[in-house]
Amino acid sequence: MLKRYFPILGWARDYTRATFEADMIAAVIVTIMLIPQSLAYSQLAGLPPELGLYASVIPLLIYAVLGTSRPLAMGPVAVISLMTATAIGDLALRGTPQYTTAAIALAFLSGVMLLVMGVLRLGFITSFLSHPVISGVISATGLLIAGGQIKHFLGVKAPSDTLPEIADGLWRNIGQTNAASVVISILAVAFLYWARRGLKPVLIHRGLAPRLADILVRAAPVVAVAVTVILAWALRLDKHGVAVVGTIPRGMPAPTLPPFDPGLWKQLFMPALLISIIGYVETISVAQTLAAKKRQRIDPDQELIALGGSNIAAAVSGAFPITGGFARSVVNFEAGAATPAAGAYTAVGVALATFTITPALYFLPQATLAATIFVSVLTLVDLGAIRSVFTYSKSEGLAMIATMAITLIYGVTDGIAAGVLLSIGLQLWRSSRPHVAELGQVPGTEHFRNILRHRVETAPGILSLRIDESLWFPNARYIEELIYDRIAEDTSIKHVVLNCPAINHIDASALEALEEVNAQLRDAGVRMHLSEVKGPVMDRLTRSDLLTQLTGQIYLTHYDALATLAPKMTRDTLEQSRCETHR
Amino acid sequence: MLKRYFPILGWARDYTRATFEADMIAAVIVTIMLIPQSLAYSQLAGLPPELGLYASVIPLLIYAVLGTSRPLAMGPVAVISLMTATAIGDLALRGTPQYTTAAIALAFLSGVMLLVMGVLRLGFITSFLSHPVISGVISATGLLIAGGQIKHFLGVKAPSDTLPEIADGLWRNIGQTNAASVVISILAVAFLYWARRGLKPVLIHRGLAPRLADILVRAAPVVAVAVTVILAWALRLDKHGVAVVGTIPRGMPAPTLPPFDPGLWKQLFMPALLISIIGYVETISVAQTLAAKKRQRIDPDQELIALGGSNIAAAVSGAFPITGGFARSVVNFEAGAATPAAGAYTAVGVALATFTITPALYFLPQATLAATIFVSVLTLVDLGAIRSVFTYSKSEGLAMIATMAITLIYGVTDGIAAGVLLSIGLQLWRSSRPHVAELGQVPGTEHFRNILRHRVETAPGILSLRIDESLWFPNARYIEELIYDRIAEDTSIKHVVLNCPAINHIDASALEALEEVNAQLRDAGVRMHLSEVKGPVMDRLTRSDLLTQLTGQIYLTHYDALATLAPKMTRDTLEQSRCETHR
Repeated sequence: MLKRYFPILGWARDYTRATFEADMIAAVIVTIMLIPQSLAYSQLAGLPPELGLYASVIPLLIYAVLGTSRPLAMGPVAVISLMTATAIGDLALRGTPQYTTAAIALAFLSGVMLLVMGVLRLGFITSFLSHPVISGVISATGLLIAGGQIKHFLGVKAPSDTLPEIADGLWRNIGQTNAASVVISILAVAFLYWARRGLKPVLIHRGLAPRLADILVRAAPVVAVAVTVILAWALRLDKHGVAVVGTIPRGMPAPTLPPFDPGLWKQLFMPALLISIIGYVETISVAQTLAAKKRQRIDPDQELIALGGSNIAAAVSGAFPITGGFARSVVNFEAGAATPAAGAYTAVGVALATFTITPALYFLPQATLAATIFVSVLTLVDLGAIRSVFTYSKSEGLAMIATMAITLIYGVTDGIAAGVLLSIGLQLWRSSRPHVAELGQVPGTEHFRNILRHRVETAPGILSLRIDESLWFPNARYIEELIYDRIAEDTSIKHVVLNCPAINHIDASALEALEEVNAQLRDAGVRMHLSEVKGPVMDRLTRSDLLTQLTGQIYLTHYDALATLAPKMTRDTLEQSRCETHR
Repeated sequence: MLKRYFPILGWARDYTRATFEADMIAAVIVTIMLIPQSLAYSQLAGLPPELGLYASVIPLLIYAVLGTSRPLAMGPVAVISLMTATAIGDLALRGTPQYTTAAIALAFLSGVMLLVMGVLRLGFITSFLSHPVISGVISATGLLIAGGQIKHFLGVKAPSDTLPEIADGLWRNIGQTNAASVVISILAVAFLYWARRGLKPVLIHRGLAPRLADILVRAAPVVAVAVTVILAWALRLDKHGVAVVGTIPRGMPAPTLPPFDPGLWKQLFMPALLISIIGYVETISVAQTLAAKKRQRIDPDQELIALGGSNIAAAVSGAFPITGGFARSVVNFEAGAATPAAGAYTAVGVALATFTITPALYFLPQATLAATIFVSVLTLVDLGAIRSVFTYSKSEGLAMIATMAITLIYGVTDGIAAGVLLSIGLQLWRSSRPHVAELGQVPGTEHFRNILRHRVETAPGILSLRIDESLWFPNARYIEELIYDRIAEDTSIKHVVLNCPAINHIDASALEALEEVNAQLRDAGVRMHLSEVKGPVMDRLTRSDLLTQLTGQIYLTHYDALATLAPKMTRDTLEQSRCETHR
C-alpha cells in the first residue's frame, strides 16, 4: 500500500553502484539541457528567469519519490508555459508581483487538482481528448509560441497570446526594431537549427555513436547561451538596446506558501484544470512510450499523484506549472537513466547552478532564449498530421483544422473546449446513423452477408438485418424508423430477424425502442427475432421485459434462425455447390 | 417535390365520401375533448383562456396541409404550456400585455427553428434526448404541473414553476384558502378520476364497445365544465371568492405580427429551442407509434416543417407554442380519423365554439380547469419507468433520477441540459472501459471464446484478445495500456492477435494508438496481428499506414491466425472430441 503511493520504496531497495553511475551520466546531460530550457520557458511564461530554475529543483525531487516512470524528466515545458502566460496575463500585468503570485497560485491549484484526480483515479478523463484535438492544439500552440518569439528577435515588447495579438503587436512595434537583437537572433537560430539538422550527421561521420551524437547535439543551446553571453558582455550590448536577462538572485529561495485568495482561485479554476489535463497528457504519453520500449509498466493514477505533488512543490518553490517534457525525457532515456533517481541528481545539478552560474547570466540576451524556444517548439508543429488524419477520416480532419484555427485565434482554452465538443459531437453523429446491412445466405455455406455486396439468397417474407453498432439513444429512433420503413415498403414481410454480433451494448433507450418495434410489428402481424446476441448483452436483456414480450425467438446463430423460419430455402442454398459462391 | 412539402396534394386526391364521414366523426369527438383542454392549458401557461382556443384553429389547418401523420391532433399540451410559463415568467409579469407578447414571440421563434431544422433535415438532433431523460423530464413536469394546480384548488395566487416555489407559495398563502373553491375542486377531481377509472368498466358492462366507451369517457371534462358553470352561475360563486374565467372575447382575433424585438428573441432563444425539441419529440413519438400500427409511414423531416408552420400560425393567431398531443391523437386515431382533414374539421369546430359558447364560459371556475389539468397530467407521471430503467441499468436509472430531481428543483430547461450531459457522459464512460476477452480455442471446434467463461486451449507465446467495442478516443489509451500491461506481465508472449468482429469503427485516435502499440511491440520483440476485421473498417485502414507498418498479418478468421502461428496446438485442439467441450 505504502509502496503504491511511494514507488521509491520499490526501486530504491535494488539500487546498485551500476544504476547510480547510469543515473549520474544521464543527470549531467539532462542538467545541461535543462538550464537554458528552464530560463527560456520562464521567459515564455512572462516570469523572471530564475523561476524556471526553481521549478527544476524541488519538483524533480518530489517526482523521484512519487513517480512510476523511470526516465521521465519533469520541469518547465513550452505548451504549459504558454498556457500559464495566457491564464495569468488576463489577471495581472507582466512584471508585477501579482503576476508572479498568480503563477504560483496556478501551479498550486493545478497540483491539488492532479492530486485529487489521482486519489479518485480519474486519469481516464484525459482519454476524452482525442488524438486530432491534442495534435491540433499542440501544433497550433507551437505556431503561437514560435510567432510569439518574433518580438524578442526584433527586440520589441508586444502581447503575443493569440495570432491576431501577435500580428497586431508586430504591426504596431516593428518601427522600434533593434538591429543588434536581430543579428544575435539570426545567428542563434541558424546555429541551433544547424546543430539539430547538420551537426549530427557530421558527428556520426566522425565516428561517434548515433546515440551519443544525438545527446551532444542537445547541448547546443548551452553553447549558444555561452557564446552570446560573452558577446554581449564584451560588446556591452545591453547599452545598445539589446534586452538582457539581468540580475538573477543567487541560490534557492525560501519556501513560500501559495496565496490564499478564493477569488483568484475561482478565476484560475478553468485554466488550472486545462493545464492539469494537458500537462498530464504530455507526461503520460512520454512515460508510457518509454516504458513500453523496455516492457516496463507505469501506473497512470500514481502518475497523477506524482505530477500533482511536483506542481505543489513548484508552487512552494515560488514557481509556475510544470510537467514531464517529451524531448528531455527521451534524452534522459537515451542517456541511460535507470531509475527516477536520475531526476533527483538533475535537481541537485540545477540547484548547484543557481549558486554558481547565475551572475554570468546577467548578460544573457533575451533573443538567445527566444531562439532556443523558437527552434525547439517548431518540432511541436506537425502539419503532416493534418494530412494523415484527413486521409483517414475527412470529418476528423476537419475537426482538427477547426481546433487548430480556434486555438490560433482564441487561444488554447477555447481550442481545447471546441475540439472536445467537436470530437464527441462527431462520434455521436456517426453513431446516430449506423451501418445496417440486409443479409442473405451465401450459397453453399451457413454464412449470411450483405445483399448489396454479395451474391446471396434471401427467403421471401423474411427480412434479415445486421446492425453494425451498439444500440443506444442516438441511434435508437433511427433503427426504429428504418424497420418501420422496411415493413411499410414490403407488406409481404412476416418475420424480421435482427442479427446482433456487432451490438456490444443496448442502453435503456434502445431497449425501449426494441420493445416498441416488437409491439408495433406484432400489431402489424410481423414477428421479430434476434440472432447471435452476445453474452453480456443477453445477461442484461434477461433483466428486461423484452424477452417475455418478444413475438419471435432468439437464435444462437443466424443460420439457425433461417433454418427454422425458411427450412427449405436454407437447406437448398446450403447444398448449392461452393464453387458458385464468391465472398 | 411539391408533394413532399405539401403532403395534402397526396392524400386529397383519393378523398372519398367514406373518408369524409370517418374524419367528421373523429373531429366532433376531438373538438369536444379539445375545448376544455385548450382553456386549461392556456391557464397553465398563465395566459387568457381564449388564447388556447386561438391556438386550436389556424395551426390545425396548417398542419392538415403540411403534416404527414394522419391521426395527429395538434394543439396546446401540458408540458409545452408549463415550459412556456417558465420561459416567459422570467421576462414579464402574468396578466401584462408584455407577458402575452413574449408568449407569441416564443411560438414564432420556436416555429422558425422547427422550420429551419426541417429544411436542413436536422430531425436527428432529437435522438440525443435519451429515453430516461425524456421520461424523467416528462414525469417530473407532470408532478410540477399537478403540484402547481393546488393553488387553484385552494383559490389562492402563488408562483409555481418549481417544487421549492410551489412549497413556498402554498406555505405563505394557505391562510387565504377559499372554501367554495376547495369543494368544487374536490368534486371535479373526484368526478374526473371516477370517469377515467370507474366509468369505463360500467359502460362496457352496459354493452358499449370498449373503443366507444373509451371515447365517451374522454368527454367527461366537458360535463365537469358544464356542471360547474351552471353551479357557479346559480350560486353566484364569483361573489364568494371563487376565481372564474370571466369575460372571453367572442369570435376569432385578427391576425397579428409577432413582435420584432431582437433583445426579446435573444432571451427566448434557449427556451424556444428546448420547446421545439420537446414538442417535436412528443409529436414524432405519437405520430410514429400510430403510423406503425397501420404500416403507414411518416416523414420525420416534413413533420418538423409541419410543426414549425403550425407554431408560426399559432403566433400569427396571437397564441402560444403548441404540439401534437398524445392522448388527443390516440382518441382521434381510435375514433377513426382517416386523413389530416380530421384536424381541419376540428379547427372549424373550435372556431364555431369561439362564436357560440364563449359567453357561457364567464362563470367557469378556474378550479374546474385546474382539476382537468390535475387528472390528465397525472398520467404523465410514470414512476414505474424509474424502476424498470433501474432494473435494466443502474447507471441509467441514477441518471434518470438525477434528471427528475434537477427538473423538479431547477425547472425543465436545467433538467434537460443535465440529463443530456449525463446520458452522453455515461456512454462515454462506459465506452472508455470496454469489455476485452482473452480468447482460447474451444476443443473440437474452430471457435475461440473467453478463457474466463469457457474451458479452452491457448497456445504458449500467443495472446488472443477480443475487444467488444468500437475503437475511438475514449478507449484508445485504455486498450493501449491493457496490451502493454499484458505483455509486461508475461514476457514469453511473442504474438498478440486482436480479434476484431465487434469493432464497428476505428477513429483517428485509435488508429494512432494501434500504430503506437505496433511500434512498441516491435521494439519489445512482439508481433501484432489482426483477425476478422470488418469490411467497412478494413476499407478505412487501407487508407492509413498501419497495414504497411504492421509487424504481423491480417487473418480472415481467428482460426486462420492461430492455425498459422501455432499449427500443432490448433490442429490437436480441433481434433479433440466434441463431447469434451462445453460452451
